[in-house]
Amino acid sequence: MDPDEFRRHAHELADWMADYLRDVGTRRVVPDVSPGSIRRSLPGSPPETAEPFELIAADFRERIMPGMTHWNHPGWFGYFPANHSPPSILAEMLVATVGAQCMSWQTSPAATELEQVVMDWLRQMLGLPGSFTGVIQDTASTATLVALLSARDTALAGTGDRSAADLSRLTVYTSTEAHSSVAKGARLAGYGAERIRGIEVDDAYAMQPGRLEAAIARDLAGGLVPACIVATVGTTSSTAVDPLRAVGEIARRHRAWLHVDAAYAGAAAILPERRSCFDGVELADSLVFNPHKWLLTNFPCSAYFVRDVPALLRTFSTAPAYLRTAHDPEVVNYRDWGIQLGRQFRALKLWFVIRSYGLDGLRAMLRRHIALAASFRSWVEAEPGFVVAAPSPFGLVCFRHEPPSLGADGAARDRWNQRLLERVNAPGDVYLTHTVLGGRYTLRLAIGQWQTEESHVRRAWELIRGAARDA
Amino acid sequence: MDPDEFRRHAHELADWMADYLRDVGTRRVVPDVSPGSIRRSLPGSPPETAEPFELIAADFRERIMPGMTHWNHPGWFGYFPANHSPPSILAEMLVATVGAQCMSWQTSPAATELEQVVMDWLRQMLGLPGSFTGVIQDTASTATLVALLSARDTALAGTGDRSAADLSRLTVYTSTEAHSSVAKGARLAGYGAERIRGIEVDDAYAMQPGRLEAAIARDLAGGLVPACIVATVGTTSSTAVDPLRAVGEIARRHRAWLHVDAAYAGAAAILPERRSCFDGVELADSLVFNPHKWLLTNFPCSAYFVRDVPALLRTFSTAPAYLRTAHDPEVVNYRDWGIQLGRQFRALKLWFVIRSYGLDGLRAMLRRHIALAASFRSWVEAEPGFVVAAPSPFGLVCFRHEPPSLGADGAARDRWNQRLLERVNAPGDVYLTHTVLGGRYTLRLAIGQWQTEESHVRRAWELIRGAARDA
Repeated sequence: MDPDEFRRHAHELADWMADYLRDVGTRRVVPDVSPGSIRRSLPGSPPETAEPFELIAADFRERIMPGMTHWNHPGWFGYFPANHSPPSILAEMLVATVGAQCMSWQTSPAATELEQVVMDWLRQMLGLPGSFTGVIQDTASTATLVALLSARDTALAGTGDRSAADLSRLTVYTSTEAHSSVAKGARLAGYGAERIRGIEVDDAYAMQPGRLEAAIARDLAGGLVPACIVATVGTTSSTAVDPLRAVGEIARRHRAWLHVDAAYAGAAAILPERRSCFDGVELADSLVFNPHKWLLTNFPCSAYFVRDVPALLRTFSTAPAYLRTAHDPEVVNYRDWGIQLGRQFRALKLWFVIRSYGLDGLRAMLRRHIALAASFRSWVEAEPGFVVAAPSPFGLVCFRHEPPSLGADGAARDRWNQRLLERVNAPGDVYLTHTVLGGRYTLRLAIGQWQTEESHVRRAWELIRGAARDA
Repeated sequence: MDPDEFRRHAHELADWMADYLRDVGTRRVVPDVSPGSIRRSLPGSPPETAEPFELIAADFRERIMPGMTHWNHPGWFGYFPANHSPPSILAEMLVATVGAQCMSWQTSPAATELEQVVMDWLRQMLGLPGSFTGVIQDTASTATLVALLSARDTALAGTGDRSAADLSRLTVYTSTEAHSSVAKGARLAGYGAERIRGIEVDDAYAMQPGRLEAAIARDLAGGLVPACIVATVGTTSSTAVDPLRAVGEIARRHRAWLHVDAAYAGAAAILPERRSCFDGVELADSLVFNPHKWLLTNFPCSAYFVRDVPALLRTFSTAPAYLRTAHDPEVVNYRDWGIQLGRQFRALKLWFVIRSYGLDGLRAMLRRHIALAASFRSWVEAEPGFVVAAPSPFGLVCFRHEPPSLGADGAARDRWNQRLLERVNAPGDVYLTHTVLGGRYTLRLAIGQWQTEESHVRRAWELIRGAARDA
């Protein structure tokens, strides 16, 4: 395909893309396909000779798209949002075309320097102190693993040794509501599975600092070394907010690394009226938040902020002969700031998004989503038989349908809510997912897609009420 | 920006993109900028209000692009290629627009099933046995870390315990020419730095199996546990090929995990006449190769093949309540196949590339690059004062200029070649990088960009000879 054929096809796709963004709300959110059907419809072996692009594009439209879940459907209320936006998509088109490899300053100077600039913009937007430096990681799982590895090596340096015997003494603390990536990352980093503590939460599903303090005291008495505490602002199940200041003071006292997982809710820190959720964040050693969740930026784009850059570099830097450049002493080489050597030019989409919307525009979107969540919550609260299951500080509402006719049998109530969820999702207009809170099957409605309007939330509520009536 | 504004800007960018692909060869490969100049030209704070897209796009063209290194310039001979291609870019446009999150089958059925299909196509293309299953990772660094973690947990399961004391006994073996990601990955996985063995290489920079066997014997005698051997097909410095069969037999004998790093050269396995480099690959436990290097696919796209999928899942799977779906027992959930939870729809670009070129077209490109490298090598060999520094089984030629006038002083020769490289790169027509081979500063010319023709290689040679004359 030469550049002129590319031009023709790119224009064709541009129209398809604009149509998709305009019409995605008319599709089913989640496709009605059974496992294996798409796979069976595709050839089992690669083609020997070239196929025309028209055929490939038609197969994409007719075979692939009917099997896709539309995360950017305005009726998307599942998991957390994985938002994108028109300016972010435009940036991705340019990034793909230039195809730069941004492992070192030398290998793409403008990409490195733009990352420095936009990560400092983000730092200012979130109200983080100037002692934090940002770098783009791919996902929060990776960023949390990076934090756990930095904490591990910092703790081992603190014990004066780096033997595996010391590694076996290191402990990690996080709430029982923390994301699965914390325990997974800790295991990958070599912490013993038996050294990962799940700290009990309060009625609002937030970590109890007193329980944290007690767990650390027990471990210290047992000769163990508290290496890392992972606090969450906006847990995955219910967007609970761990008390950062209290947790941070405990971390400081015991010289443990404090990592803050604000993957979803970090975006809300750009709202002055929500910043109280981040009170005490200056006590953290690192923080992750995902612009690819609730800040209109294409996945993957995870913002990792860290205070002790030299500690980061001690764990992740590497300088083989073939990567050294004359500029190394005076520049940032982001290959030394994480796990991967190769890096895409991800700063561009953030730059396009922040400039296209401005702080005002981004704040307006978040406020609209939070207001819609508050409306939905008020409808649930006003409806007999429904209960709200947790506080809703951001765009997520957790709820259950518990009509008196079901009685007090927890398992029956769980089955009922599971069936309710299936019925709500079946028509394909909206999509909600579930979690388990306090041992109970719970429905989640997460608002965060850029095209979601009140009409979509009303439609979700109509379907929920209808399913509750008919179930 | 609404869908119609998006449409207009996408069409504008489509033309810019086609022009870029057509004209990239007329730009400087590496920009002439000094550290900090781009950063200083950008505002230090984010805008409060929205800016028009025309202004943002103009800033991209006028402020960012002049500071970019053009990895897809036909005069790109640095590092290894980071290739893309028109069909791959078209796929990226669609992937960005749909914005799917492919962590589970449920969250994007077609993406999961297409990944299964194209990874099996790739397996067949490389001639890997049916016992291998493929999954897309982001980079070879990540894939190698995944292998080292699987090897770690498999070895620990083998010792019947999972205590840190056991972890301290695990050893890793790789050649002294292995990529820096191997030692880095081993450290991150918690192997002791003092347990990573660099096995000596032969005159062709390939691992010596006898030395490997001896190192393992010493470690066994010392009560240590050989957990992982990383062999390389196509080392970064010189594309040396470790003898897979001999290394694999040693790995089998000692029940060590054998990981093959074929990040760059794996693409060449689609050529029957190059497959001898992969002789013995069926003895490997895992293998990584990067379609984003030499197979026309946009970064990131790293193909990881593994034999023992249950071992992979034991290390990486996680199933919190909020991620469970009714389909889990009958589908593949790729979130359990690696470090990250979130996953982009990366199979699409591979599908577009393989179908757009066909096996024939991909083979023709690789053969053209290999033939160009052979031509260049013959020119170097024929030129008095130049020496070829290593075998060239693929698209890379390593060489030095060693005129008799320089004498035998190694340091002087290194400085001379360093200056030569600077002079070759200065005009911006071509870009080469260096390595150190056998302690000596060595120039590398790596051919692999899809638009590179003989004229570009001739231009590089003209510049090299000119610099050698004038230096």
